[in-house]
Amino acid sequence: MIPSFNFARIPHIIFGPGKLVNLYSLIPQYGKSVLLVVGAGSLEKSGKLDEIKIALEEKLIDYHVYEIKGEPSPNMVDKATKMYRNKRIDLVIGIGGGSVTDAGKAISAMIPKEDSVKNYLEGIGIKSHNGKKIPYIAIPTTSGTGSEATKNAVISEIGHDGFKKSLRHDNLIPDVAIIDPELMKSCPASITAACGMDAFTQLVESYVSSNANPITDALAFSGMKYMKDALIPACSHGSSDINVRSSMAYGSLISGITLANAGLGVIHGFASPIGAYFKIPHGVVCGTLLAEATKMNIKVLKERGSEGEVSLEKYAHIGAMLSNEPLNKGEEISQYLLILIETLENWTDLLKLDKLSNYGISNEDITYIVDNTALKNNPVSLNKKDLIEILKNRL
Amino acid sequence: MIPSFNFARIPHIIFGPGKLVNLYSLIPQYGKSVLLVVGAGSLEKSGKLDEIKIALEEKLIDYHVYEIKGEPSPNMVDKATKMYRNKRIDLVIGIGGGSVTDAGKAISAMIPKEDSVKNYLEGIGIKSHNGKKIPYIAIPTTSGTGSEATKNAVISEIGHDGFKKSLRHDNLIPDVAIIDPELMKSCPASITAACGMDAFTQLVESYVSSNANPITDALAFSGMKYMKDALIPACSHGSSDINVRSSMAYGSLISGITLANAGLGVIHGFASPIGAYFKIPHGVVCGTLLAEATKMNIKVLKERGSEGEVSLEKYAHIGAMLSNEPLNKGEEISQYLLILIETLENWTDLLKLDKLSNYGISNEDITYIVDNTALKNNPVSLNKKDLIEILKNRL
Repeated sequence: MIPSFNFARIPHIIFGPGKLVNLYSLIPQYGKSVLLVVGAGSLEKSGKLDEIKIALEEKLIDYHVYEIKGEPSPNMVDKATKMYRNKRIDLVIGIGGGSVTDAGKAISAMIPKEDSVKNYLEGIGIKSHNGKKIPYIAIPTTSGTGSEATKNAVISEIGHDGFKKSLRHDNLIPDVAIIDPELMKSCPASITAACGMDAFTQLVESYVSSNANPITDALAFSGMKYMKDALIPACSHGSSDINVRSSMAYGSLISGITLANAGLGVIHGFASPIGAYFKIPHGVVCGTLLAEATKMNIKVLKERGSEGEVSLEKYAHIGAMLSNEPLNKGEEISQYLLILIETLENWTDLLKLDKLSNYGISNEDITYIVDNTALKNNPVSLNKKDLIEILKNRL
Repeated sequence: MIPSFNFARIPHIIFGPGKLVNLYSLIPQYGKSVLLVVGAGSLEKSGKLDEIKIALEEKLIDYHVYEIKGEPSPNMVDKATKMYRNKRIDLVIGIGGGSVTDAGKAISAMIPKEDSVKNYLEGIGIKSHNGKKIPYIAIPTTSGTGSEATKNAVISEIGHDGFKKSLRHDNLIPDVAIIDPELMKSCPASITAACGMDAFTQLVESYVSSNANPITDALAFSGMKYMKDALIPACSHGSSDINVRSSMAYGSLISGITLANAGLGVIHGFASPIGAYFKIPHGVVCGTLLAEATKMNIKVLKERGSEGEVSLEKYAHIGAMLSNEPLNKGEEISQYLLILIETLENWTDLLKLDKLSNYGISNEDITYIVDNTALKNNPVSLNKKDLIEILKNRL
């Protein structure tokens, strides 16, 4: 039985090592004036930013560069939109990690407006965005958020009154996503690990999501299949292996497509309040909680009896795939659930994912976090006790 | 190793029984004046056309109805574009079988032009289309061509100087595809069979295509998985079962997405000249040739030794899936190749797919057909002898 579903557009995807050069032939379709949104330094250090600037100059393309430091805040977005609103920008290009590609997305959406992005953030502002934007090309340099394929930009303000909320509209899906694994080769191990776990979490959560559909099922499973053998090498001996980086980039891209269409679960539910109150990278939150939250979901699903069967079978499919075995019908699924949990725990150790307390989160913060955690499309309802247990195990 | 690939946009998909009603809330986004492209009669007979007209009138939407009889010819498209070019049409809606959704697509692309669609057909005209079009919503009433998700419209002129060629541009992918399996319940068995075999052929051919990528692999496999248990029931006792029709509609939709991004093989290579010279439904050509062409591809791939292994494994995956077994590594793949061929032959018999001679095709026509057959993205190169053998076995 196929459930009714909507599937949003996806960007035009250009995937492959060296494909960054396709950018230069694409730009003239949009116009002559480009705003490049970049991160703080790494693109510059690698020499890639200079390469891009030279190519744009050769094509007589007028460009501005706007730098994003850390995760994007309303101020950063508003400052950029004020600065470039009257400069007749034809195209915004966001090239960097998830923070940068999200910032670029928000800037491209806010240039046509007159006010602050804060007014349009879910749960913060009272206006809803109408989707009108400057055309936008996203070029990720990490394999993490999948922002290059999503319809939302996450904007945060950190602190006790902080928030981590989305500007969202179907039309904010980037027009083009250029996925060039060459750009990811210089990403350091710790960032590769955190981003990779974020992407894998997105794949798992959208695969078991209560809002999944056959398209997101097929894609999420494919993304996990490619990532599973690449995740550890990408953070160690395989970091400069282009096949490893390609698999990571593919998984990340797919995770953006599936999360945009199937939604996410409790791990991303936790990530909103934790990311709003504490200065902790989003990927670390996801990575450090993935095994524990999966264990809890499976435990509670088992208590549900037949009601939990479909989701348990999906988790077992992941476990079977992780052990390179197909799930045979009628076979005991418990062993594959065990393999799934063991593999995720193993990854958490191997990738040395920080515990939450490393970022100043203590026992006293747990109630506050749990009170502000949404279950999203988690495959099973968890109560506060369950949520507290997940967090305590990773404190 | 992930190959470099491009993936075109897909339409915004609205899938599910009863989802046709979503059309009425979508239209005002585009404007007030709509051109409905419909088929000859079946939509009218079922009362659906009246239902749509009433809904449009209630919403005060101005509409015109243009009827397509049979597969679209340049004349049909040109006549419509001449008629509506000066009528300020805001949105074209194609609702019908593949011929109708293709015709609607072509009309939406040709209204902004001043000349004949013939000038823009691949291999026929010398102009290339720039992608500028009137927004277009496709609503299929058969599960066949997948046209609701593709970037091309097939236009033909039948006869000895005939052709069956595409108007193609990435931007011609419909803006929205509404897939409502309710609309397919009244589709008669013979048309359901031919269309279903067309869709399944598209899934097989794009799955084993030399231009496949991980996204098309995952999707094509998913499409086949849903179709395999629905195809025979849809043409017999399950024709009014909404789950059966949903699976067929899903497979067909996916086949459009995968063919647009991975290409097709020799069966669709045959379909161009056969469809151009003879009055034979496209789905019958595909359906009647699927088993024979697959058998030949497998035979020739086996002769290629290690070079053919990847494609043979893909074919074996389909065979394993058809027998509800996962392909276990190291296991003999030959048995699954056999199952694949046997299943396709069995379907050909069960669905009573006509032989080519039923449409006036004789031994004398074979050379001419073969001389005009392109291999497209077939997984292996076939020579003329191979092509002749395929056709002779279905004469």
